[in-house]
Amino acid sequence: MGVDRKMDEKTGTLRKQRGRASVVFENPPLIMAAASTVGKKEGDGPLGVFFDRVELDPMLGKKSWEEAESELQSRTAGLVIEKSGLSKEEIRYSFAGDLLAQLIATSFGNINLEIPMFGLYGACSTMGEGLGLGAMCVEGGFADHVLVGASSHFASAEKQFRFPLEYGNQRPYSATWTVTGCGAVIVSSGDCQGKEAPLAKITAVTTGKIVDMDFHDSMNMGAAMAPAAVDTLLRYLEATGRDITHWDKVVTGDLGFEGGELFCALVERHKVTVRDRYADCGQLIYDREAQDVHAGGSGCGCAGTVLSAYFLPLLQSGELRRILFLATGAMMSPDSVKQGENIPAVAHLIELCGETCGGNGHD
Amino acid sequence: MGVDRKMDEKTGTLRKQRGRASVVFENPPLIMAAASTVGKKEGDGPLGVFFDRVELDPMLGKKSWEEAESELQSRTAGLVIEKSGLSKEEIRYSFAGDLLAQLIATSFGNINLEIPMFGLYGACSTMGEGLGLGAMCVEGGFADHVLVGASSHFASAEKQFRFPLEYGNQRPYSATWTVTGCGAVIVSSGDCQGKEAPLAKITAVTTGKIVDMDFHDSMNMGAAMAPAAVDTLLRYLEATGRDITHWDKVVTGDLGFEGGELFCALVERHKVTVRDRYADCGQLIYDREAQDVHAGGSGCGCAGTVLSAYFLPLLQSGELRRILFLATGAMMSPDSVKQGENIPAVAHLIELCGETCGGNGHD
Repeated sequence: MGVDRKMDEKTGTLRKQRGRASVVFENPPLIMAAASTVGKKEGDGPLGVFFDRVELDPMLGKKSWEEAESELQSRTAGLVIEKSGLSKEEIRYSFAGDLLAQLIATSFGNINLEIPMFGLYGACSTMGEGLGLGAMCVEGGFADHVLVGASSHFASAEKQFRFPLEYGNQRPYSATWTVTGCGAVIVSSGDCQGKEAPLAKITAVTTGKIVDMDFHDSMNMGAAMAPAAVDTLLRYLEATGRDITHWDKVVTGDLGFEGGELFCALVERHKVTVRDRYADCGQLIYDREAQDVHAGGSGCGCAGTVLSAYFLPLLQSGELRRILFLATGAMMSPDSVKQGENIPAVAHLIELCGETCGGNGHD
Repeated sequence: MGVDRKMDEKTGTLRKQRGRASVVFENPPLIMAAASTVGKKEGDGPLGVFFDRVELDPMLGKKSWEEAESELQSRTAGLVIEKSGLSKEEIRYSFAGDLLAQLIATSFGNINLEIPMFGLYGACSTMGEGLGLGAMCVEGGFADHVLVGASSHFASAEKQFRFPLEYGNQRPYSATWTVTGCGAVIVSSGDCQGKEAPLAKITAVTTGKIVDMDFHDSMNMGAAMAPAAVDTLLRYLEATGRDITHWDKVVTGDLGFEGGELFCALVERHKVTVRDRYADCGQLIYDREAQDVHAGGSGCGCAGTVLSAYFLPLLQSGELRRILFLATGAMMSPDSVKQGENIPAVAHLIELCGETCGGNGHD
């Protein structure tokens, strides 16, 4: 791995920046609480025991799939605030998003929170986009506590992007299964260390560029997104000048089995071996054979719930010391696909460290 | 106007915060450049001479309305970077959004910029959401220069939210006309004062909450959004403890004639007279009678272009000293409207000062 030595010369005026679009935090924000709510299929999967709540009713008592997804956001936000021990008045901002047109799961799901809200759209990368902006907001001194959340719902996503469920369409093996779920965390200032030990520190962020590889297959989102994840990972490696072995895990959001394989192969072309420390939330959340999910899980809720329920506790317990979380998103819409447009993608990288990594994890 | 004296007691730990969700910047970020591109109808309107570019071809040489809107974003971003005298490599992040499902005008319009991007969805409030996040990012020390932009296109919005143009549907007088246009600005660190005088300083931000008033008429967006603008304005007045006469203008994004009247009336109920200093971008951009626009202009591009082309130069010239810019958004989707849901709304407030206001405009 080549080391770009220029990246180590701090400029003085912009002390927190390293390389293009990478920020290393001097005083890393803390993830003080995390919550996850999922549907029955996710509850039946290999990570079932880790989720806070499994909702057996896919409608969550509502009249439409979209309302059900809003309810997922609302309940998960309520739960993470409860777990944090804060009041909702103490949460200064909400950074939230979903996959639906005009972000309706988020807007409607945030009404009763009454927390000033930044609506984000990054497709399935939204959890990474939110963690990046939330962490900057907190470390910049603009908030003590912010909420970051992202949701998806299998049925609202199928209706939006593919076919109504009643149609019973066939899905190719490269297609992923949209996770019904919402993940949410509370990001707090490093000065806010409370009674509870944090789950993890957010030590660095690399923001993704829109990457367009002239790819068209909307039934293979993993392949569409893998190049964006490679681009962001390589930029962070270059910015830090570190070898990949510095991190215990490199975790992508929802590349699934097809896209994950492509990601590892593409990274190898740059003489970086990531396979021995690679994990993908979309590969972990379902039992591929028994649950008939083809290429794995996807959706904003995939990376959000698996991070919240599975990886953050591993960082807290010390089983993992330091990971790179790469939330990946395919930036198409139903219209753009029908009009024959390419599928551009984006990936946002978040470096997370457990308490066993001292300081900001970089000194 | 009641003064909440608690707001004047700075907490020490969170020096930049005032009140709930208001940030007053110690070292205000500067708007160093602004650019606007509009369609022919906007060019024919009262502000026509102020826009940088008027595109006579509504397709901008592309095959679809969505592609045309992406091209608007791409050209306007290119223009504002050119006007700033910076290279695109010097712009650290892009904060951008539009009205379309899954933000395709933005994602596709940002491909060739290769600037790390945060996709934002705030409906027509996107210019305010972007200015707020961009200013925090810059003042927090995470970037020297960021790009903030928002676009809309009459034809892509009609296709998305209402009827295909070919259908020739009738519009009630409370309906607004979506602006074809893109506004973009470069927000730079206060330490980056260059050869050129800035257009304005961003001295404070109040982030909007999702406000749901049980309102259902999707042909009267101004009425849907007015209560959100009132909520955000009153929170900022409370946070600062200042009288409304402190500001030369209170400018809303796209309430139009119906919504603007409602906004003034609702604010008056709180014993604040805003009418004598009120302006609305949607009222200004078209000639209401001659251009048959009914309630005025709307869309992300409305607030974005009118701020860039009209209000920022007035701040730079000193004709206006200090304004409150309230970008307003209606957070529905075509699906939520068809499903009979309410229309929740949001408004993000940005305080802008010319150079004649010393320091951070608050000492």
